[in-house]
Amino acid sequence: MQQDWSERFAQRAQRMTSSAIRELLKVTEQPDVISFAGGLPAPEAFPIGEVAEAAQRILRDQGACALQYGATDGYRPLRGWVAETLRATGVPVSAEHVLITTGSQQALDLLGKVFLDPGDRVVVEAPTYLAALQAWNAYGASYLEVPADDDGMRTSALKPLLRQAPKFVYCLPNFQNPSGVTLSRARRERLVALATEHRAVVIEDDPYRDLRFEGEDLPRLIELASADSGAPGSEYDGSVIYACTFSKVISPGLRVGAVVAPFEVIHKLTQAKQSADLHTAMLNQMLVYELVQSGLLQRHVAVIVDMYRARRDVMLDAMARSFPARVRWTHPAGGLFLWVTLPAGVDAAALLPTAVAAGVAFVPGGPFHPSGAPVNTLRLNFSNASHEQIREGIARLGGILGASLSEPERLAVPAAAR
Amino acid sequence: MQQDWSERFAQRAQRMTSSAIRELLKVTEQPDVISFAGGLPAPEAFPIGEVAEAAQRILRDQGACALQYGATDGYRPLRGWVAETLRATGVPVSAEHVLITTGSQQALDLLGKVFLDPGDRVVVEAPTYLAALQAWNAYGASYLEVPADDDGMRTSALKPLLRQAPKFVYCLPNFQNPSGVTLSRARRERLVALATEHRAVVIEDDPYRDLRFEGEDLPRLIELASADSGAPGSEYDGSVIYACTFSKVISPGLRVGAVVAPFEVIHKLTQAKQSADLHTAMLNQMLVYELVQSGLLQRHVAVIVDMYRARRDVMLDAMARSFPARVRWTHPAGGLFLWVTLPAGVDAAALLPTAVAAGVAFVPGGPFHPSGAPVNTLRLNFSNASHEQIREGIARLGGILGASLSEPERLAVPAAAR
Repeated sequence: MQQDWSERFAQRAQRMTSSAIRELLKVTEQPDVISFAGGLPAPEAFPIGEVAEAAQRILRDQGACALQYGATDGYRPLRGWVAETLRATGVPVSAEHVLITTGSQQALDLLGKVFLDPGDRVVVEAPTYLAALQAWNAYGASYLEVPADDDGMRTSALKPLLRQAPKFVYCLPNFQNPSGVTLSRARRERLVALATEHRAVVIEDDPYRDLRFEGEDLPRLIELASADSGAPGSEYDGSVIYACTFSKVISPGLRVGAVVAPFEVIHKLTQAKQSADLHTAMLNQMLVYELVQSGLLQRHVAVIVDMYRARRDVMLDAMARSFPARVRWTHPAGGLFLWVTLPAGVDAAALLPTAVAAGVAFVPGGPFHPSGAPVNTLRLNFSNASHEQIREGIARLGGILGASLSEPERLAVPAAAR
Repeated sequence: MQQDWSERFAQRAQRMTSSAIRELLKVTEQPDVISFAGGLPAPEAFPIGEVAEAAQRILRDQGACALQYGATDGYRPLRGWVAETLRATGVPVSAEHVLITTGSQQALDLLGKVFLDPGDRVVVEAPTYLAALQAWNAYGASYLEVPADDDGMRTSALKPLLRQAPKFVYCLPNFQNPSGVTLSRARRERLVALATEHRAVVIEDDPYRDLRFEGEDLPRLIELASADSGAPGSEYDGSVIYACTFSKVISPGLRVGAVVAPFEVIHKLTQAKQSADLHTAMLNQMLVYELVQSGLLQRHVAVIVDMYRARRDVMLDAMARSFPARVRWTHPAGGLFLWVTLPAGVDAAALLPTAVAAGVAFVPGGPFHPSGAPVNTLRLNFSNASHEQIREGIARLGGILGASLSEPERLAVPAAAR
């Protein structure tokens, strides 16, 4: 008997979107394609030796703990380390405010599972992180988009959206995925003030914070919310829930992240996590703790910041040389991505087959919006290609843009004029 | 501003059950409590040296792969190994039928997410695996319970339940958690035949299969369903979805399991997994593959089967000596658990505080039923205590049962008379 699976899934189809990035990544596995489509850290920088040494120490000294079932809320020393990192900036949290997750993707999924009922509204930046939309689509979220510019979310547009009682506001303040832009200090303060005024919860997703190439760190939203809450000794008010990960600064393959939230939320998230995967792998949590404790984190971040800054610079330089006039792009101060805007009316997705045929790949901007509708934008990743690949790939892409856009737009103007 | 979290979660409360086992396990962390409440493998048997060696080899030879993002569907060689294991028994599946999961708990969660809409019916054994109920409660499942006896699910009671169009039938055929019983060969055949007749999907959850202490392996349900489907070369018909894990035979702390399902289901599960945690940790998948490839799995299973058999025997012997008459229990042929039935009308949960005060812990049977209502049953784990602890803990429990049950029931009869 053959099951009729399409019939069984018919009613679910609207709530489970297909994975645009996944399909696109398959295309880019073709040989000779230079891919700016992924979001992968540079594997040549992975701290392989340090991970191997830490694994030996952990298995020698605490092997039974590393291989046994663990607590759902996570390895206590790592929870404490995350809390201490925030407490050092004035956020009054303890280990009990921290849940270790199987990458920060799991934090997004569990937050959706705990907060969202079908039809609930979520405020997101436009564009926003694709996999957050995928996670929350499964719980029937609807979205309110806040436009963004080079200073991030335009908080002036936020107030009317907050009046629609969203379950939360989702924000990636640093070197946002996909746009690469950073929320300005003034807008951070405005966002926290507005959220407080409207009793709205903010989910601050901060995977790239440590990957800053230039300028000074800006305060986290959770720091600003804590400063708002008053005197030292005050309690964490929970208006900002904070998600972070070790994927970009140590290794994504280990799948270790964390979420910081009020006790009641942590309790609910922990229940949801227990059903989802019981707990995050113990060896992996202990490895991450060993590495952050040993000082590897700081040393390694310095190495990859230098590496990614140089790659960004090569990409920006190559774009200035070969992209047609009227194409615009962001200048990220950190992270892994930049964002390209083509002339109005051009569908970036329609250019992808030509680009792949010419040996270069990107992610069209559509899937980074809740509607998924065609847009004139695209995302480029600069962390996972050599300088030579970046120069060659951008030259190929520039050629395609030049040939595809209308004649006047193919006339390049000097970078300095932009 | 303090968020009113209880208000926010009020509407979710009915769908997220509290974790009974979790709360109970906290109690048993008290010193001097001999706990039969958990479900932990014996840590003294963990293959720590082999894991450490495999970790060194993997990080030395394939470090960048082990630490990088991986495919959502899993590490290809491990998917192939799982498929090959089933193919060797006549199940016509390939690596594309296998999704690697973050423990088999994630398989249960993702199956719920993909299959279940609120109010959907699921057929479960009575009692059944608590964490499956927790996972599916979150998706609004309702349950149809099939009574079980020493031969497992009573398939004679299944037909009227199948007429109620359940989304699936959930079955743990080998050394079931919590009861320890094994589904007989005749009932396996009957279950598969009934499921085929009613076009019902069976989810076969098989974490303990390799931990058989005596007797011969019985065919998996997925094997029987494949035999039904006809000639060699026939396609896997998908009427049985198979979940397995490396938690009980290698290490639970690594969080690696797998689910075998038709292509369309794997596709949906993979989409759901991408939103849940992107992929299972690469290092962990590669470790498991190294260990199963190297022959460690077979050697290690032989060690723990001998260890757990001896512990079961000590527990059964101690129970026969010290438990009152009219208390009954299962005699599992494998696995980690056995199941105790007190005289009708006795609430096992009401005995737990007395037991913990006397230094012994168990899990009352209530939470293993969808209603969670008080019952006269309890679960004992024998894999995670020494012979001495088992003898002492069972003596304590026997004393409490003797004192708590009515006078005639305290009169022990010789084990041979039972």
